[in-house]
Amino acid sequence: MRTLKLRLSYDGTNYVGWQRQTNGLSVQELVESAFVPLMSRAVERPVASRVRGGRAIEGRGPTVAGAGRTDAGVHALGQVASVTLDLDLVPSAIQRALNVRLPDDIRVVGVVDARPGFHARHHALGKTYRYRLVTTGVLSPFDRWYAWHAPDARDLEAMRAAAGRLVGTHDFASFQAAGSAVRATVRTLHRLDFAADAGGIVIEIDGNGFLRHMVRAIVGTLADVGSGLRPPESIDAVLAARDRAAAGPTAPAAGLTLVSVRYAAVC
Amino acid sequence: MRTLKLRLSYDGTNYVGWQRQTNGLSVQELVESAFVPLMSRAVERPVASRVRGGRAIEGRGPTVAGAGRTDAGVHALGQVASVTLDLDLVPSAIQRALNVRLPDDIRVVGVVDARPGFHARHHALGKTYRYRLVTTGVLSPFDRWYAWHAPDARDLEAMRAAAGRLVGTHDFASFQAAGSAVRATVRTLHRLDFAADAGGIVIEIDGNGFLRHMVRAIVGTLADVGSGLRPPESIDAVLAARDRAAAGPTAPAAGLTLVSVRYAAVC
Repeated sequence: MRTLKLRLSYDGTNYVGWQRQTNGLSVQELVESAFVPLMSRAVERPVASRVRGGRAIEGRGPTVAGAGRTDAGVHALGQVASVTLDLDLVPSAIQRALNVRLPDDIRVVGVVDARPGFHARHHALGKTYRYRLVTTGVLSPFDRWYAWHAPDARDLEAMRAAAGRLVGTHDFASFQAAGSAVRATVRTLHRLDFAADAGGIVIEIDGNGFLRHMVRAIVGTLADVGSGLRPPESIDAVLAARDRAAAGPTAPAAGLTLVSVRYAAVC
Repeated sequence: MRTLKLRLSYDGTNYVGWQRQTNGLSVQELVESAFVPLMSRAVERPVASRVRGGRAIEGRGPTVAGAGRTDAGVHALGQVASVTLDLDLVPSAIQRALNVRLPDDIRVVGVVDARPGFHARHHALGKTYRYRLVTTGVLSPFDRWYAWHAPDARDLEAMRAAAGRLVGTHDFASFQAAGSAVRATVRTLHRLDFAADAGGIVIEIDGNGFLRHMVRAIVGTLADVGSGLRPPESIDAVLAARDRAAAGPTAPAAGLTLVSVRYAAVC
């Protein structure tokens, strides 16, 4: 048995998210299925269990654990996943073989051998997400799946001031999806940067961990600030409230991308 | 009656091209249909003639002439179109009303009144196209509709040398779609620039007019040069041959974008 560390890039538009679900096609399910033909070459032909875009999806492969459970419509440039399996191929051959099986909106961009027992989620030290807001009057067709059209969120200085109050270690309960069962809601944000690009604002958030919908609730609240709907100083009261209703709306999934996952050097 | 000049941006992935055709949905057809409710507010309700994505497409509107007949899968940042009609609304209201009716992969990004008789195609003095090649080993999911994966086309200097032989006034018959009926095949390329971006090469071509598939045949030939399949000097013989078979392959539509159309200042 060996443990592999995979780096994946995907366009989340057509998926229910990273995680395997009964209500639609997940990235995890496709990646796991892509391993099947590699592992069963000596065994009888696997049975096609599902068909997508003319491509048969073959039986269930090994469990592939993703570092981040990206939601439906959320994208990834550098999702990391781990898998433990018995497979006698060099990493570059595994990468090529997986990409041949995967649809072109999911790409394996790297495969390396990890230390035994490596788990992409349990061992992650931090993640970087990127969110794109478009502030022009008309949303470009090329941004329609990759940004949130928020033409009023123009006060970059107010958003920067609000973001400064979120960086650091706080109880982020107000920014957790309502109804979430997670009780330990203290997280550390290392960085929350803004950059203006053509027609919009790119927000980069780097933290040691994220609650469900946390990045999107932060962005929705910052957009409120940028639109003049709430002052930057109000962030302190939002954090203190520990109540989802105190923060702003959950920004749409389309604008969000998981950029990278950080590990200790030994992984 | 008045004449309007429209500027349009569209993702061509889901369309048969700009021009109205019987074998599928065109951008032109949707833009023309979007005018219908603006013009018939006093008349009876238009009859839904087609449905796309839950949106009824209403009867035929006025003829909207596009500057460039972009092919299926080709994109536009600044396609220009003209329409002559009887309509009593300010340009910004027309823009908003059209965008409400159009799907989000087609956006009207500008509307102005043009001089009477203005025709977007007949009066165009030149056009700028952009083509994107991806030369990394793996094609990013985010490039899959917007670039050509040509990992071997890496010799930028050879491509620049070949491009230098295409700039200027030449007979481009070798770069015209086979079977095209156009006899006057002399065109002038003002500029053919290369820029390296993350993972690829962006080619910008500026000319006074383009034959059918001309940009894509030029890019396919330049990619041959960049891959070492033909030397830069061979371009002279390709031009002299006046034979489509002498040039390289037609590069895929997905990588091509109509960036802008140039007119005399009086339009």
